[in-house]
Amino acid sequence: MPINHIIVLDNRPAGEVSSSNFKLITAPTPDLKEGQVLIRHHYLSLDPYMRGRMNAGKNYAQPQALNEVMIGGTVGEVIESKHAKFSVGQTVQCMGGWQQFSVVNADAPGALKSVDAKKIAISHYLGAVGMPGVTAWYGLNKIIQASAGKTVTVSAASGAVGSAYGALAKARGCRVVGIAGGQPKCDYVVNELGFDACVDYKEHKDYMSLSGALKEACPNGIDGHFENVGGMVLDAVMLRANDFARIAICGMIAGYNGEPLPMTHPSLILKSRLAIQGFIVSEHLEVWPEALAELSALVASGQLKPRETIAQGLAAAPEAFMGLLKGQNFGKQLVKLI
Amino acid sequence: MPINHIIVLDNRPAGEVSSSNFKLITAPTPDLKEGQVLIRHHYLSLDPYMRGRMNAGKNYAQPQALNEVMIGGTVGEVIESKHAKFSVGQTVQCMGGWQQFSVVNADAPGALKSVDAKKIAISHYLGAVGMPGVTAWYGLNKIIQASAGKTVTVSAASGAVGSAYGALAKARGCRVVGIAGGQPKCDYVVNELGFDACVDYKEHKDYMSLSGALKEACPNGIDGHFENVGGMVLDAVMLRANDFARIAICGMIAGYNGEPLPMTHPSLILKSRLAIQGFIVSEHLEVWPEALAELSALVASGQLKPRETIAQGLAAAPEAFMGLLKGQNFGKQLVKLI
Repeated sequence: MPINHIIVLDNRPAGEVSSSNFKLITAPTPDLKEGQVLIRHHYLSLDPYMRGRMNAGKNYAQPQALNEVMIGGTVGEVIESKHAKFSVGQTVQCMGGWQQFSVVNADAPGALKSVDAKKIAISHYLGAVGMPGVTAWYGLNKIIQASAGKTVTVSAASGAVGSAYGALAKARGCRVVGIAGGQPKCDYVVNELGFDACVDYKEHKDYMSLSGALKEACPNGIDGHFENVGGMVLDAVMLRANDFARIAICGMIAGYNGEPLPMTHPSLILKSRLAIQGFIVSEHLEVWPEALAELSALVASGQLKPRETIAQGLAAAPEAFMGLLKGQNFGKQLVKLI
Repeated sequence: MPINHIIVLDNRPAGEVSSSNFKLITAPTPDLKEGQVLIRHHYLSLDPYMRGRMNAGKNYAQPQALNEVMIGGTVGEVIESKHAKFSVGQTVQCMGGWQQFSVVNADAPGALKSVDAKKIAISHYLGAVGMPGVTAWYGLNKIIQASAGKTVTVSAASGAVGSAYGALAKARGCRVVGIAGGQPKCDYVVNELGFDACVDYKEHKDYMSLSGALKEACPNGIDGHFENVGGMVLDAVMLRANDFARIAICGMIAGYNGEPLPMTHPSLILKSRLAIQGFIVSEHLEVWPEALAELSALVASGQLKPRETIAQGLAAAPEAFMGLLKGQNFGKQLVKLI
């Protein structure tokens, strides 16, 4: 059996994540039992939700266990199979974690999914045509309920979720305005992703200033917002939100290190009759087929051109993850494992 | 024509409301035109929303105009009529304002409503069987979507909205827990209104302490919450909110004087996948008939026993209103004008 390299959570971060929170270990891959499949991972997905799992406190999911492989989505190939539906060489997607190989009980619902490697580059199954894409789809359709002519916004607009959100919103006839950090990202959001405008939050030292920039970019106000960041961005958006605006809360990366992150003007929820809702896409599996069908079509047609930042080799994962949390990636952050 | 006593807004409060913000003036009631009705008010309703209108800033409604009669709901009798549908002696409800008489264009939709003075004391049309009652009904049914076995909470539980909310929640088979200020109000909420428990927020100096008391009163957590107050109360409730809990925001009286009132842990919206929505009952006229039918039945059957605090005479209105904003009233705050 091949020797597996595995990154486990060694200890929980106090504040910012550091590479010392992780430990790289090796272990032989176990022999397969009946119904199991051995996967060699080609790509590992790095996502902001992982930061929340690293804390011990209340969260929507169980905390990442210490000394266990870090959770993460992967795409790869079957290299050994004791399951009738999967054969060697097939391209598959699973929650394989931060490691080179994983053994999957292929009968567990949703555990292992065959993907089409012909029409779409397989890495996109971890981004635009995977969990981040469906996340954007759910927030835009089910919470924001976007429709033609409305103005919708998204923070972390150049990321995997934000870029899918932009393409989906344009397909619905919305005006879509991004919020991103730095001019290169804002240029990419407008020029390559096709957003109508993008505001660089790094040019604004407080939410009032950012709100002023949003006012310019959204002359008819904001009808729907998708929040990946929280803090000053959410404060600024709420000031520009129209009556009956709807806000999907998907991430609050600004507060993941435990610093206080209050909402400055919750009275706007009443004054503007806002609807604000938090969600996790893995709790809404019923929408995945419909969402993935639309996302694949957008990628295949070139209406959605997802960008990727790819770190090389498992050992590079912690550093790449820390960069992601600071917004240093550009588009979807991946680790190439082969 | 009778001489009318009128309270107008003389100037806007800077911080707390004071009696010097109001001015009492007199004027003859005008002659009626065709289609108009002259009403002699018996009761004036005092409600927290009036505080928001006194500010000049952004609000859900136009600010109360200076030197105009203060807005307010009234119930009274027709004393002169130039409209075929209304005759002298009829009991009616209208937005008559802080004055003894009003002239109403009876054809304007919703301007004048005939009420039944036989089955229910007419003052209740300003409380349990009026706007506050429908407010509770809308929040509980349309936003919180309460159902049997769930735990639902409400702040300002002894007030007009809170007391109706309690009766409606019990009728749906919920566990209903109030939050109120002081032991006498808490006793009333449990013993007379039939809540399962009531927490005295005045016994707690911060939201963490209040949250501990809510944990005891809500052993299965909180599934739905109706917010009249905001600030520390909302912070405490959010800590105890179950996954997928729904929160209706109806008032943020704690912040009406302009002091900052942040939400301490908005990240709980994501972690607990909360749905939070602000609303104003006057924007949902479609539910009023259904809501009023249920509320009348609850009052007529004695399942809802609304309590009232009644100030005597128009000149007492400012003082009574200031008391309401400080929670000094007990149940529905009214002014008797005859």
